[in-house]
Amino acid sequence: MPTYKLTYFPIKGLAEPIRFILSYGGVDFVDDRFDREDWPKLKPSMPFGQVPVLEIDGKKINQSTAIARYLAKQFGIAGKDDWEAMEIDASVATIDDFRNKIGAWHYETEPAAKALKEGILFKETIPYYLEKLDEQVKKNGGYFVGGAVTWADLTFVALLDYINFMAKGDILEKYENLKQLRARVLELPKIKAWIEKRPQTDY
Amino acid sequence: MPTYKLTYFPIKGLAEPIRFILSYGGVDFVDDRFDREDWPKLKPSMPFGQVPVLEIDGKKINQSTAIARYLAKQFGIAGKDDWEAMEIDASVATIDDFRNKIGAWHYETEPAAKALKEGILFKETIPYYLEKLDEQVKKNGGYFVGGAVTWADLTFVALLDYINFMAKGDILEKYENLKQLRARVLELPKIKAWIEKRPQTDY
Repeated sequence: MPTYKLTYFPIKGLAEPIRFILSYGGVDFVDDRFDREDWPKLKPSMPFGQVPVLEIDGKKINQSTAIARYLAKQFGIAGKDDWEAMEIDASVATIDDFRNKIGAWHYETEPAAKALKEGILFKETIPYYLEKLDEQVKKNGGYFVGGAVTWADLTFVALLDYINFMAKGDILEKYENLKQLRARVLELPKIKAWIEKRPQTDY
Repeated sequence: MPTYKLTYFPIKGLAEPIRFILSYGGVDFVDDRFDREDWPKLKPSMPFGQVPVLEIDGKKINQSTAIARYLAKQFGIAGKDDWEAMEIDASVATIDDFRNKIGAWHYETEPAAKALKEGILFKETIPYYLEKLDEQVKKNGGYFVGGAVTWADLTFVALLDYINFMAKGDILEKYENLKQLRARVLELPKIKAWIEKRPQTDY
């Protein structure tokens, strides 16, 4: 069994999908959370100055989605063939686009640019994505792809606290199929056990 | 042999990596380029309102990177094992981050926000990424991963005209290993043939 050490800020953020997948896979991992004040010192040692970084048997790898896909393959939740793997990849990329659009508003520091983004985000972008994602889950038997749990479902649910924090509210309120998907993932025994033992943070 | 139809704006842009990979694979594809004025009419018919979209035997798939990865698997340029596949994925995700940071400046419409982004982009971000990518190619025998051509190399080179258009100059000027990688990819016989026959566009 390889050893896993995951390094990130002391939040859920972009590391939580990896923590969900490792937990789903039933493997132990070192959940290395550094203090925010130590980040400037750590940053130069990280590939492309970013985290999360996963060490597998001491080898550092970066890019959260690449890490998540690799782990999902090891644990059998990356699709039953190349076509399903692609559908999962496309779903994860769409979830990433969605998160980035919310982040582009949340992290905007120029007031005029922020105001411009806010109207479009809440009136158009968020409902547009959620309606389509809700419909996709409805069509696929309660999951994003193939009627069974994949790393697309784990990724979406793991990111929700961070997305809701940025959007300042529960974005799923009106979306029944996505709400049911969330409940279904949070009830998976290994995910439930992870949530009970993980450090409590808002996002 | 499946049929392929790729739909996009009449530019290289985000579709060119897919066109490179299809060409590398030696398969015929319909290179469907629509007029910009028709986009508002076409947009609602595209998954999540975005292009490129690839139809494989009439089935529409979206998200350029998911499409590219799927095709790369079919043509044997997606890594020799899961570990290499992950290194390729991480490289492509980093190239994507790099392109997005340039795009965030290029497409910014608020003058104050644009000015703020410009300084950081050209003084810090672009040199930071290119130095590290150049070093990676040097270490890996002239390619991003594993000493042989993969879809990470095709993706990077295919995107260069678009990236250079946004950055208003040849960003590779000072980076020998990346320049050699570009030359190496552009000399692959099937890529060379594609470039000779493709429609001439600036980016």
